[in-house]
Parts: sequence; C-alpha cells; structure tokens
Amino acid sequence: MSAQYRKLHDHFKRISHFEHFNNLGEWDLCTMMPDGGSEGRSEAMATLSSHIHEMRTEDWLSDSIQQAMQESLPAAQQANLVEMQRQVSQASLVPAKLVAAKTKAAFACEHAWREQRKNNDWQGFAPNLTGVIELAREEAQIRAEALGITPYDALLEKFEPGMTTDKLEQLFAPLRSELPGLIQQVVDKQAGEPNTSLTGKFDTAAQEVLSRKVMALLDFDFNQGRLDVSSHPFSCGVPGDIRITTRFDEDDFSSSLMSTIHETGHARYEQGLPTDWQGQPAGMARSMGMHESQSLFYEMQLARSEGFLGLIRNDINQAFGNDYSLEQLKHSFTRVNRGLIRVDADEVTYPCHILLRFDAEKALIDGSLAVKDLPEFWNANMQQLLGLSTQGNDKDGCMQDIHWTLGELGYFPSYTLGAMTAAQIRYAMEKQLGSLDKLMSNGRIKEIFNWLSANIWCKGSLMSTDELMTSATGEVLKGEYLLTHLKQRYLG
Amino acid sequence: MSAQYRKLHDHFKRISHFEHFNNLGEWDLCTMMPDGGSEGRSEAMATLSSHIHEMRTEDWLSDSIQQAMQESLPAAQQANLVEMQRQVSQASLVPAKLVAAKTKAAFACEHAWREQRKNNDWQGFAPNLTGVIELAREEAQIRAEALGITPYDALLEKFEPGMTTDKLEQLFAPLRSELPGLIQQVVDKQAGEPNTSLTGKFDTAAQEVLSRKVMALLDFDFNQGRLDVSSHPFSCGVPGDIRITTRFDEDDFSSSLMSTIHETGHARYEQGLPTDWQGQPAGMARSMGMHESQSLFYEMQLARSEGFLGLIRNDINQAFGNDYSLEQLKHSFTRVNRGLIRVDADEVTYPCHILLRFDAEKALIDGSLAVKDLPEFWNANMQQLLGLSTQGNDKDGCMQDIHWTLGELGYFPSYTLGAMTAAQIRYAMEKQLGSLDKLMSNGRIKEIFNWLSANIWCKGSLMSTDELMTSATGEVLKGEYLLTHLKQRYLG
Repeated sequence: MSAQYRKLHDHFKRISHFEHFNNLGEWDLCTMMPDGGSEGRSEAMATLSSHIHEMRTEDWLSDSIQQAMQESLPAAQQANLVEMQRQVSQASLVPAKLVAAKTKAAFACEHAWREQRKNNDWQGFAPNLTGVIELAREEAQIRAEALGITPYDALLEKFEPGMTTDKLEQLFAPLRSELPGLIQQVVDKQAGEPNTSLTGKFDTAAQEVLSRKVMALLDFDFNQGRLDVSSHPFSCGVPGDIRITTRFDEDDFSSSLMSTIHETGHARYEQGLPTDWQGQPAGMARSMGMHESQSLFYEMQLARSEGFLGLIRNDINQAFGNDYSLEQLKHSFTRVNRGLIRVDADEVTYPCHILLRFDAEKALIDGSLAVKDLPEFWNANMQQLLGLSTQGNDKDGCMQDIHWTLGELGYFPSYTLGAMTAAQIRYAMEKQLGSLDKLMSNGRIKEIFNWLSANIWCKGSLMSTDELMTSATGEVLKGEYLLTHLKQRYLG
Repeated sequence: MSAQYRKLHDHFKRISHFEHFNNLGEWDLCTMMPDGGSEGRSEAMATLSSHIHEMRTEDWLSDSIQQAMQESLPAAQQANLVEMQRQVSQASLVPAKLVAAKTKAAFACEHAWREQRKNNDWQGFAPNLTGVIELAREEAQIRAEALGITPYDALLEKFEPGMTTDKLEQLFAPLRSELPGLIQQVVDKQAGEPNTSLTGKFDTAAQEVLSRKVMALLDFDFNQGRLDVSSHPFSCGVPGDIRITTRFDEDDFSSSLMSTIHETGHARYEQGLPTDWQGQPAGMARSMGMHESQSLFYEMQLARSEGFLGLIRNDINQAFGNDYSLEQLKHSFTRVNRGLIRVDADEVTYPCHILLRFDAEKALIDGSLAVKDLPEFWNANMQQLLGLSTQGNDKDGCMQDIHWTLGELGYFPSYTLGAMTAAQIRYAMEKQLGSLDKLMSNGRIKEIFNWLSANIWCKGSLMSTDELMTSATGEVLKGEYLLTHLKQRYLG
C-alpha cells in the first residue's frame, strides 16, 4: 500500500466507523427507541451526518485521490479510488445550504403527508410537494451541470452509477409494449383456476418461528444478524451484524413471510460483501438496483417457485396447523391482481407501477409536468397501464409513496432494474447449475447461495455494474429475461 | 448568551451528540448485538471515543473557557463553565499514549480474568493485575502533579469532584468503629426470627411483568425509556430515552426485582435532570456518589421499607400465585448475612466490603501494598471486618470485582458515599414530608419523587456536591445518618 493510498484508505475506514453509528441510530429508531427519544436522536443524527459529510468533502481528498490514481496500484485499489472519488464528488456537488433546505422541506412534507394521505387531502399536500420538487429540481440542475449530463440522469447517478434515461427507456421498452397484454392473459388464465387465497387467523408468535426457520434455510447467519419487528420492513447493518425487520399480520401470514424473505435477500448480499474490503467504498454493494436484484431474487425467483415452496410447505403447515397442498401454495403465491398500490403488487403488475413513476419523475424534473397536474397524469397512466382509475382517490394514487415526500426522485427505476437483474442472474445460474427447482428439491439449495456469493456478493463495488453483470451472466443487463421469466411462470 | 459562551455551549452540545452514539453503542452491545458484530463495534467505538477525546482537548478550549469566566455571566452559565473546564482538564491530563496503554492492558487483564476467576487462578492473574495497577499509579501520579493533590485524591476526583482521602476517612470513621458490632447485634437478633427466605420457581415472564409494574409505580416513564435483559444489570441513556436492564433468575425473583428497582433509581435521576441544560456539562449528574445515592434511595430506603412492600405485596403474590404476608416480605428483604461477595451483600454489611477496598486501593496507589500481597491483605481485613476467611479462595476474595481489572481505582468509595447520601436525604425528606412509610401507605408516593426531582435531580451539576447537599438537606454530607438508619431499621 503506498503512503498516499494508505492515507485515503484509513480516512474512509474512519468514515465507515461513523456510518456504523448512523446505521445503528436508524435501526434503533425504527425498532427500539421510545417516542421520548425522538428529539434527542434527531439532533444527534444531524450532527453525525454533517460530520460524515465534512469528512467526505475535506479539501485534500480530491487531489489526493487524483495523485493516487497516477500511481501504479493493483487493480482492486484503483477500483477503490474510483469509488472514493464518486463518494467525494457526490458529497461535494450539492451546497450545504441546499442540503439543509431539502432536509427541512422533506421533514415537513413527510410529517404532514402522514395525515394528509389518510384524509385523501391532495389540496393540503400539493403545496408541500411543490416545495420539495422545486428543491429536487435545483439539486438535479446543480448535479447535472457539474457532471455534464441531464438533470434526471444526474439523479439516477446517485443510485445507479452509469445509468441514463436513454438506457432505461431501452430496457423498459419491451415492458411498456408487452406488459399490459401479458397481464390480461395471466388474469384470464388465473380466472379459470380455483380461488386459493390463504385466509384465516395466524398466530404471530408462530409466524415469527416460521420466519426464523425460513431465514435459516436461506442461510441467514443469526450469529451475524438479527430479526426484529418494525412498522415498515427494512434491512440495514454493519460488518458482522446485518439486521432485518418484518411485521406480522394476524390475518395474513404470507405477505409477512415474503417480506421477510425479501429482506433476507438484501441481508445476504450485505453478509456476503468482501470482508477484505470492509469499510472501503469498493467493499460496498454495487448499486440500489443490484441490491433490489438480490432481494427480488430471493422473494420472486426463489421463494415463489415450486421448488422452494415444496421445501417450506411442512413448516407452514406445522406453524398454523393447516394442510395446504403444494398446488394451493403455488397458486396463492403467484396470484396476479391489478391493484392501485405498488407495495402490494405482484411481480407481473409491479413494473407498471414503476413505468408510471419513472415517466412522472422525468417530467417533474424537466418541468413538463407541474405538481398540480399530477393527479390527472396519474389517473390517465393507471388507466392505460392497468385499466384502473384513481380519479378522486389520490391517497391510493399519487399520494401513496413516501419517496417523493422525502425529495427522493430517481430511485423508483431501481426496483425494476432489480427485477430484471434477478431474472437475468437466474437464467445464467441455471445454465451452470441446471434447474433451480430441481436443485432445491434435491436438497442442494446452498449451491444457489454459493453461486451468488462467488459471482455477485464478494465483488462488492470492485467492478462497474456492466462489468459485474458481464462477469456473472456473460452479458450486460438486458430487459428480456424478466419477460421470459414472467411468461414462463405465469403462462407456461 | 455572549458570543464566547455560545461557542463553548455549541461545542459541548456537539460533544453530547457523539456521546449519544457512544451510549447507544454500549447499550446495544450489551443487549442486542450478535457476537459477529464484536469486531466491527469495537473498531467503531474506538474511533468514536478518540473523536470525542479530541473534541474535549481542542487547543482553543481552555483559553476560551478562561475568557468566558471573566465575563459577567449568569450564575448557571458560570457553573456550566466550571464543569466544562473540569471535563477539558480531566481529558487533557493524561497523555493519549498512556490512555492507549491502559485500554490495552485493561482489555487483556479483564479478558483473561473471566476464566482466571472461575479457576481461582491467582498466579495467572497477578502479573496482569500488576501491569494494570502500575499504569493506574502512573496515571494517578500525572493527575496528582497537574492538580497539586495526592495521587489517590486525583483518582477520587474523577468520580467525586472535591472529595479527598481525608474527608473519606472522616466520613467512614464511625462505620469502621461501629459496624462490626452492629452487624453482630443484627445477626443475633435475626437468628431468633423465623426463616423467611422466598424460595421456589418463579416464571421469568411473570417476573418481567412484575418488574414493569413496579417500575411504573416508581414513576419510570416508559415513553422515555426501556427495560431489557443483559447479563449484568445497568442503566444508561440519552435525553428522553433512559434505558435500564435486569436479569431474571427462575430460582430467585427477589434479587432481580431489587436490582430492577436499583437501576430504576439511576434512571429516574437521569430522567429528572434539567431539560434546559441537556447536552451541557452542568446538566449532567453531579457525581457517581450522587448517582448511587439515587439508586440506593430507591432500593434501600424505599423498596425494602414496610410502606413500599405493602404497596407491591399483592403484585408479587399475583405474579407467582403465592400468599406472602407483609411480615414475610419484610423479613426476607431485610435479612442480614455476612458474606464474601460484595454485590450480594445487604445494606448493613455492604460498607465493610467498601472499607476493605478503599484501604487496599490507597495502599496499592501509594505503593505500600504490592499486588503480590493482596490476597493476604484481603484475608486479614475480611477476618477483621466480617469474621470471614478468603484464604486460598481468591476468586471470592480479591479477584471478585471487575473494577481493578479495568484499571478503575477510586470508584469503590462512591458506593458508600451513595448509601450515606441516600440516608441523609431520607431524614431530610421526612422532616418535611413526615414518615415515608405513612406517605406510601396513604397512596402519596409521588410526593417522594417530587421532592427528589425538585431538590436533587433538576439541579444537575449546577452546584457543587456540598452546595447541593446543603440546599437539599440543610447540611453537607455527614456519615451518621446511615448508621442511624441501619440501627432504626435493623435493631429498632
């Protein structure tokens, strides 16, 4: 390690130590903290965040990284320098004043939105959202000028390094054209099948035992992580200690179980990141889309497959004293319904929710869509994509998500990038390992995790997304595998 | 607020924000963290601690505090400056190199001690302890020279600002002379009473419910705190969020209950500190002795009294389906036994354990006692104070406590200062409120908490310990009240 590189290495390691507490503070806030702790925690988090921001924007960093890049360092160290530079420039782009204004507006908007959404109060919400969107535009503009790209691309860059609107349009084009028809075919097909919804009362303690069993089957290491309860499931953590949360609903075990499996996918990626690179930018997850690909691989590719449901059928039946057949479970876990709510959507209709938001975001940022026209835009697109109306029902329309209230634009595409990536990974994996269903029913599920570990997790950010996909699957991301998968599972 | 004072105020507020995470990191480590998180947590805590240390020793601080002290500021701000100066000088006194050497030696000593104690392995332990004590002497010497006091007084100063060996000798003198005889009288008296130990199997879930009920009775605010389980009970927290832990033993509910009540006393002090001074040195607890006084007031003065046991008797009986009489509970919770273990000691014999350690610490620091002679010293003093031998049983003698393994000398006196303070507070309170037993049986327990809140808690560190005691009880700390209390309760 050169002296120059060593200095940078140690600095980023120190940053990761402060991020450790950022992470812990957030987790505790969502799972353990009593209400009385809110004010103290938010003040402490603000000080910590600004300290981390200062560390990422110290004067000497950019020059030092540039100098280290001139040295002849091993490829992995060079990759680490690239990621350091990305962090530094991402942190330096936006003036502190704008960051503070954004945080303040987002806090007020989100806080009021909790009630406004319940009350379907678009008129109350619109002015707050307008303020947040204006600041997001300002941020996008500043980032765009600094990076020499378009404003919306500059927002994408925060979550998906290297991704552009043009690439997304290309990737999403087949979904746009084929999905509405495909959904109709699936719905028609399933209309002829028996109603198999798994209704009843499901003891939440038994649900938790089941969750832990399934997590263990998915190789989650409880010596290196935890499962807890929070109002919205999430995953987070630090090296050696990756934590996920879930929620239990007495009337519905299946959505809780699938959400636990989803978060387990996120967690396994984090648990599998390269230990030699802990605390370094190159040791982190590649992108948000890649992160979603792991959670969706677990939830969609694995957990809703016949092979996997066969593995957990006995556990489910034991937990609740039922006698579901494999057929019943399969039907229930692959049921397709057109609905208004993104987070409740199945994997076939889900991309429609993303296409709608992607189009809206682009237009909100380039100014061609005004916030006041959002309800109409939403309704028109929902009609076209899913044949559903949100007229007068904004709480289940353009007010349903938390992302925009927080000023977070540019994130939504990551969900569908994740679904596409998961499908592509699965086909690549099957070329090498054979049918995953067979593998699972033969008790060889660990080979799946070993493949992910060797080809995705242990790579961290040591390669670009394109390089990572090429090294893992033989080609860069292509949209077609998701459609192939959906047709195979739902129409096959 | 003057500009000079404001700058200091904001700096210490920022320090408190980093201390927030130090606190959370420790709590999580003891209650929630899986084993796999150890390495990452300890690295992150080290970075955080050294950052806090740097903030407390920044070059400009001492001069700035001195300048602010010249301004004509309100008394409370002046008190805050005094506490700031204390923090800065305490942090600056010891060179970073010595701190690091101490941390390293303590870690190794404590780690090995866990096994060595179990195995009664004095020969293995002695060299490690010698290393730790040598560093403690070095620290004491450096502190002593800087402060112009004796080395042991310099260690006392860390925990009890203003306390000296001479004052302690004076305070402890009546205990030294009267306690052995008093213990004999109590033991003789209790020998004639029926054996009332509360034996049986006690469901731990029922114990937890009981603990929460009793905490609520003690006005613990669960909206501003938590109860959890850890292997050693402790209390900690941040403004608005004070957390305690306990442990449950199926064979013995009473020690767990009393330990929960003890920690509740610590927590109520923290919950009652002045909110206007949150994050400022003057807003913190006055001293470790004052902290112990609150936990001991709760555990000894309140919880083992007839009035309080009367309040919780039904809850205890309901919890375990027993039918203990008030007499039975009272006998059991005030049973006196000479024993070898400090943490298991009753309030009558406890000060003997402290006198022994106080004498040993002084001698270890001034060099008149060598580590190799500690077992003999211990045995001789235990014989004299409690008539018990530790010959060949060092694990229950000089190896029983964690304090010295961590290099923490000068803390033990705080326990007995706390017991004395609690007794003095109780008599002062009774002068104003009348008998606490009567108050409690009349359903007026809250008046006790109101008194503590108004006279102790809300004062934080805005006064010196002597001023605080004088304002609350009409006189500085006197040793006699503890003896009066013990005679009244155990021989009355």
